Amino acid sequence: MSFDWGNVTHITKVDPAKEFPDDASVLGHTDAVIVGGSDGVTEENCLDAIERVRSEFPNLPLFQEPNSSDHVSKETIEAVDYLLVPAVYNGDKGNFVGKHVDFFTEIGAKPDEMIGSGVPLVGGLVASKGREVVAELAEKVVGEGYVIQNLDSKAAAETNVETTFTPEEVAGAALATESFYQFPMFYIEYSGTYGGPEDVAAAAQYLDDTALVYGGGIKRRQQTDEILDAGADAVIVGDCFHEDTERYRQTIPA
Amino acid sequence: MSFDWGNVTHITKVDPAKEFPDDASVLGHTDAVIVGGSDGVTEENCLDAIERVRSEFPNLPLFQEPNSSDHVSKETIEAVDYLLVPAVYNGDKGNFVGKHVDFFTEIGAKPDEMIGSGVPLVGGLVASKGREVVAELAEKVVGEGYVIQNLDSKAAAETNVETTFTPEEVAGAALATESFYQFPMFYIEYSGTYGGPEDVAAAAQYLDDTALVYGGGIKRRQQTDEILDAGADAVIVGDCFHEDTERYRQTIPA
Repeated sequence: MSFDWGNVTHITKVDPAKEFPDDASVLGHTDAVIVGGSDGVTEENCLDAIERVRSEFPNLPLFQEPNSSDHVSKETIEAVDYLLVPAVYNGDKGNFVGKHVDFFTEIGAKPDEMIGSGVPLVGGLVASKGREVVAELAEKVVGEGYVIQNLDSKAAAETNVETTFTPEEVAGAALATESFYQFPMFYIEYSGTYGGPEDVAAAAQYLDDTALVYGGGIKRRQQTDEILDAGADAVIVGDCFHEDTERYRQTIPA
Repeated sequence: MSFDWGNVTHITKVDPAKEFPDDASVLGHTDAVIVGGSDGVTEENCLDAIERVRSEFPNLPLFQEPNSSDHVSKETIEAVDYLLVPAVYNGDKGNFVGKHVDFFTEIGAKPDEMIGSGVPLVGGLVASKGREVVAELAEKVVGEGYVIQNLDSKAAAETNVETTFTPEEVAGAALATESFYQFPMFYIEYSGTYGGPEDVAAAAQYLDDTALVYGGGIKRRQQTDEILDAGADAVIVGDCFHEDTERYRQTIPA
């Protein structure tokens, strides 16, 4: 993942199952967009959201974070810069290695179906050079080291998170991300509730190459600043983009 | 892991709980040594084996593959080139992410105890620059993508492997290793029984940057050749080093 985090401090998570706000131009104030959600997500609404963001904000870095391979198609892959695949450290096995092996087994077993003939990158090579196609495709997939810290969230329920991590365990997971898995991102997710800077500070001490992002309950610039001051590269703001664009504006750092 | 696999085709796994053979000079014919085992392994016998190999064969690349952090100390870390940490794709969660988070949480929480003051790399920096020390230490730890294909083995019992992978799943795990986890090694382990070249060939098609190794039941050069011809970078030979050095010699490729 050769993505320049230098100027990215504010990322908007767009839920493809929710309506865009009347004034979607506020996205002009964010630094990147992730398309992904939990409920009612389909390949079609992902593609709609991706294409809308891409056409209205062509220069905005754009990611898809699918929570099932059903939300991924050759069209979505073509349209985004990267596919983010969560590796949930405190979830069950099916949300870490199990899911990843399944995903790559599927890619390996069905390169034609997964890729189709419309990918400019590969053109007519699909049939004759399936292996290379798979390798190209796989380059768009990057891992996110992920810790879910709100047990009452949909995200926790879906990944079978039964215990949150202590700050020491968050730090350990961050170090594992930086040193062992080498995923390019480490994501602390408080999903709907503001978790404060403690976990961020614990993780930040070990992360040099890995981007550190925080999401959950951010509704004011003061919170954004607190998280960035604790060492995060960026905050992720979701709900209030859909629900209250005035509030959303107030989450954007100076 | 900046290790040159170019000339490494034969690796010997030395079990620290077993006796060295009378004629240990046969190790002069292998290309690298991994110290690690399942039963009766302690920090002390690991260190003994590591130091013996290091002193008699100072130029041989030397790895430790601990199956518990109890087998690791500042002395073992200092004495080896790399620490190999298995990530068992078909094991339970405790043998993938769970173990890794615990390991790095422990390193992060106890840098002094883990590292001590005798590490030349860090010297007096331990107290003042704990974070940097941890980062240095973590650089010696590398992951091995691992698939255990013999359900009757001790290795399978210890990692709670309940199903073997099909060749397609082995290929998927290989692709996940190359593209997603980016571990420098992918290890197909038939532990005590010869599995033939099929899994190796399935995995090899996706591996460019990742070294592919095979272990299990190799007792003849013909088997070594078959595995290498299928695309493995190296075979790993264990049991017959301890049990029958004449047979061991016959596993060494031309």
